[in-house]
Amino acid sequence: MVRGLFVTLEGGEGVGKSTQLRLLNSVLPSYGLDVLTTREPGGSPGAEELRQVLLFGQSPLSLRSEILTHFAARFDHVDQVIAPALAAGKVVICDRFTDSTLAYQAYGRADGASEILSLVARLQEQLGADPDLTFLLEAPREVARVRLAARGAPVDRYELSDEGFHARVLAGFQQIASDNPDRVKRIGTSGQSPEEVNSLIVKAILSRLQQG
Amino acid sequence: MVRGLFVTLEGGEGVGKSTQLRLLNSVLPSYGLDVLTTREPGGSPGAEELRQVLLFGQSPLSLRSEILTHFAARFDHVDQVIAPALAAGKVVICDRFTDSTLAYQAYGRADGASEILSLVARLQEQLGADPDLTFLLEAPREVARVRLAARGAPVDRYELSDEGFHARVLAGFQQIASDNPDRVKRIGTSGQSPEEVNSLIVKAILSRLQQG
Repeated sequence: MVRGLFVTLEGGEGVGKSTQLRLLNSVLPSYGLDVLTTREPGGSPGAEELRQVLLFGQSPLSLRSEILTHFAARFDHVDQVIAPALAAGKVVICDRFTDSTLAYQAYGRADGASEILSLVARLQEQLGADPDLTFLLEAPREVARVRLAARGAPVDRYELSDEGFHARVLAGFQQIASDNPDRVKRIGTSGQSPEEVNSLIVKAILSRLQQG
Repeated sequence: MVRGLFVTLEGGEGVGKSTQLRLLNSVLPSYGLDVLTTREPGGSPGAEELRQVLLFGQSPLSLRSEILTHFAARFDHVDQVIAPALAAGKVVICDRFTDSTLAYQAYGRADGASEILSLVARLQEQLGADPDLTFLLEAPREVARVRLAARGAPVDRYELSDEGFHARVLAGFQQIASDNPDRVKRIGTSGQSPEEVNSLIVKAILSRLQQG
């Protein structure tokens, strides 16, 4: 049976994930690949409705509920979009996935508390959709803040959090990378152009596809 | 430590749950009990936002996502409302809880598929809040339909489903009752007045409290 490749882009805000998603969407087809790009939270019509509650809701959810809501959106996204595309042999590239829930909720909000890490692990186990390859994009927080300010997009709940929170999130991503050395590739985005970063990612995807 | 009592009311639409909730709220305090009545989906501000997606959302969620969303709302409801009230020694009475997710989603939508029953069981295990006592209110479907029509409230997604679905839901509730004979008490509501039903429920709650 044909089985595609599931790739995720992770990292803090303003590190260049959306730029890479756009570049991959235009570059990968020239290698004969059938590509689907998508992003979380959201990515399917029902998950987009949950995204509104998560990012712009009026009443903060308890931490456990916030994690469940991220997974509720993720289950719909996987069931209705990602799994069918993988089954059709596509390369699916998703901006944020479960690593973001670990970094933002388990490390950022709960400071790595073991019962919260374990809740996320059990939900991911139930979900049964694990990325084959993850690119953790990294830039110094100061560079990311300037990029974010230039973007001028509406600011959501997570971007409004304090710097202590963001520091815990970034440390969380580093922990995830060191826990999953085969899956997660770290790429610094501040010392090189978006096109240079993109060619590193493309090379890694092609090499992974050749391994089968 | 003081620990309250967690009571749930379950059953199909139109069997008299809201009436019993109202009656319990006015009768139980005369026995010196501190009572909190609430209902699902919803029951806390954040869970009410998720309720809107569940009952009136524009884009149907996948079955697994629907179950996760019900639990996301339930986790917030438990964390922010039910658990604090129980810790304060209150009698909490909730109109619908996990048994409704089992009946509507696992039995009604999935016809009791074992992987869906097991998803619900694992989420409930993570939640860690089990009712002490559950009253399953039952009325012939024809009686319930007449009551629903008389109510004139906005019709949600579940009430709009076909009769085969409602039959599976009711059979699901019966299965849950027979799986949990100590916790679940079945009460027929069509042959007696709301006050008679209420006095049965009050009696069972008082007797349970006396057992400690």
